[in-house]
Amino acid sequence: MNKLLIVGTVAFDAIETPFGKTDKILGGAGTYIGLAASNFDVKSAIVSVVGEDFPQEYLDLLTDRNIDISGIEVVKGGKTFFWSGKYHNDLNSRDTLDTQLNVLADFKPVVPTDFKDADVVMLGNLHPLVQSSVLDQMEVKPKLVVLDTMNFWMDCALPELMDIIKRVDVITINDEEARQLSGEYSLVNAAAKIHAMGPKFVVIKKGEHGALAFEGENVFFAPALPLKEVFDPTGAGDTFAGGLSGFIAQSENASFENLKNAIIYGSNLASFCVEKFGTERMLNLSDAEVNARLQQFKSLTQFDIELNK
Amino acid sequence: MNKLLIVGTVAFDAIETPFGKTDKILGGAGTYIGLAASNFDVKSAIVSVVGEDFPQEYLDLLTDRNIDISGIEVVKGGKTFFWSGKYHNDLNSRDTLDTQLNVLADFKPVVPTDFKDADVVMLGNLHPLVQSSVLDQMEVKPKLVVLDTMNFWMDCALPELMDIIKRVDVITINDEEARQLSGEYSLVNAAAKIHAMGPKFVVIKKGEHGALAFEGENVFFAPALPLKEVFDPTGAGDTFAGGLSGFIAQSENASFENLKNAIIYGSNLASFCVEKFGTERMLNLSDAEVNARLQQFKSLTQFDIELNK
Repeated sequence: MNKLLIVGTVAFDAIETPFGKTDKILGGAGTYIGLAASNFDVKSAIVSVVGEDFPQEYLDLLTDRNIDISGIEVVKGGKTFFWSGKYHNDLNSRDTLDTQLNVLADFKPVVPTDFKDADVVMLGNLHPLVQSSVLDQMEVKPKLVVLDTMNFWMDCALPELMDIIKRVDVITINDEEARQLSGEYSLVNAAAKIHAMGPKFVVIKKGEHGALAFEGENVFFAPALPLKEVFDPTGAGDTFAGGLSGFIAQSENASFENLKNAIIYGSNLASFCVEKFGTERMLNLSDAEVNARLQQFKSLTQFDIELNK
Repeated sequence: MNKLLIVGTVAFDAIETPFGKTDKILGGAGTYIGLAASNFDVKSAIVSVVGEDFPQEYLDLLTDRNIDISGIEVVKGGKTFFWSGKYHNDLNSRDTLDTQLNVLADFKPVVPTDFKDADVVMLGNLHPLVQSSVLDQMEVKPKLVVLDTMNFWMDCALPELMDIIKRVDVITINDEEARQLSGEYSLVNAAAKIHAMGPKFVVIKKGEHGALAFEGENVFFAPALPLKEVFDPTGAGDTFAGGLSGFIAQSENASFENLKNAIIYGSNLASFCVEKFGTERMLNLSDAEVNARLQQFKSLTQFDIELNK
């Protein structure tokens, strides 16, 4: 079975949306990526850090899904990373109410020995130096490295970000971040400039407007599934990345044609993620539901046009 | 050959974009719809009104493309409808600088006798009473009636708008307008409410984010082609509607499956429209270019995923 190594936060979130609010619940990019990837036949591990306050039951939720947590350091006397945010009425934007780095401030990732030859490495959104440190520890060159990042690192750690971008095969980034990183408004031009920074594949996430994937002149577009109700967008981008990297790890095929499938799979899983608060929906998701929704993605996008003349 | 009846403005536009500005040039919804529809093997006619100031060469451009202009009234001593607008840097929003209704203020559409049995009627964005008057003149029930409208009529003529919406098969409307008309934020819920107002098919235009089509529970999504550069968005929505209605008129098939193809065709033509100022690109467009871009739409959206387990 192929191995997928994930680095990302395992954390507490407190979320407020127009539909309600939560206390501290399980969150973090590493968590969402891991849960998404657990839908595939891959051997996955999360590298992360939590405090002594982190409930054993949350760790058990991960091990129950065959996710190796030996790379999740538990800091004695430490407190777990905490993020709190409030979404606006349109759910497309949010205010951060509180960020407590806690144990994340001094996080030194340690890759489990058994995953130093992972086939796919998924670098969740974290400081670029943490992402680089994970790659540095690999003993076998991974078949595919996927990087997620955000505007915060462009503002605060651009040189380090550019260093890690050089080393990855796939970058996932949202539309505004792609514009910021490239200085180009057109996403076609932005992708071309980001290609030149290193990544062979550039995946631009547009939230409810779907995702674009570029490989040079080749372009693919995956819509977001139109939903009656989006309940909580938290973790959708990480779930997308987890579905994408999990699918590629399972299928052992890192071609652009297969990336298209991976993106549809990521979009599919993300469409479930937003249906409930936090990780709730991802923790209660059946293969039958996923497969039924894949059919919806097919009928949503497939057509059979004939040339006109 | 099937007949397509178009009602819409034939007008002057003056456009300013970040890339330059134009003097008074040929514009109007009817013009763009007609030019788009002229890419199909259909017999089409435009019902509209212009002033005596309207150049014969502009009318000739339409007749050269086999568009029947006997329904375009030329008002002696009258001045043609004029719109002037300036696009913002992102090209997604614009300010109207000037609107001179002129002859449009008293427009009484007259459907040419030969088109009172048109197979498809495309009601371009105009006062709902003008749109209704065109339908009232039909002697044979059209196989398909397509309505385009905008927020302006929701604000100023809502009862009349609701009356015409009841009578059409397809409504094309942008996302913000769909939300305004339905009072629903989710486009899925908005489409359901608009269905209940009458139209069997609801097409929601999202500009650079593509278009959604609904028929009850069935949904289809067509992306906009990602472009290096959008030069002038004027007329893109009308070109989309013209491509859609022209394709259906030609293919004599008003099923949802064929509407999908029609929407791809409309998106395809719209992707050319925005490449130059005004109608310039639509007036210089070859079948080979259109067909090549249809292939791009296929590779942009088609995938061949297998179910996971």
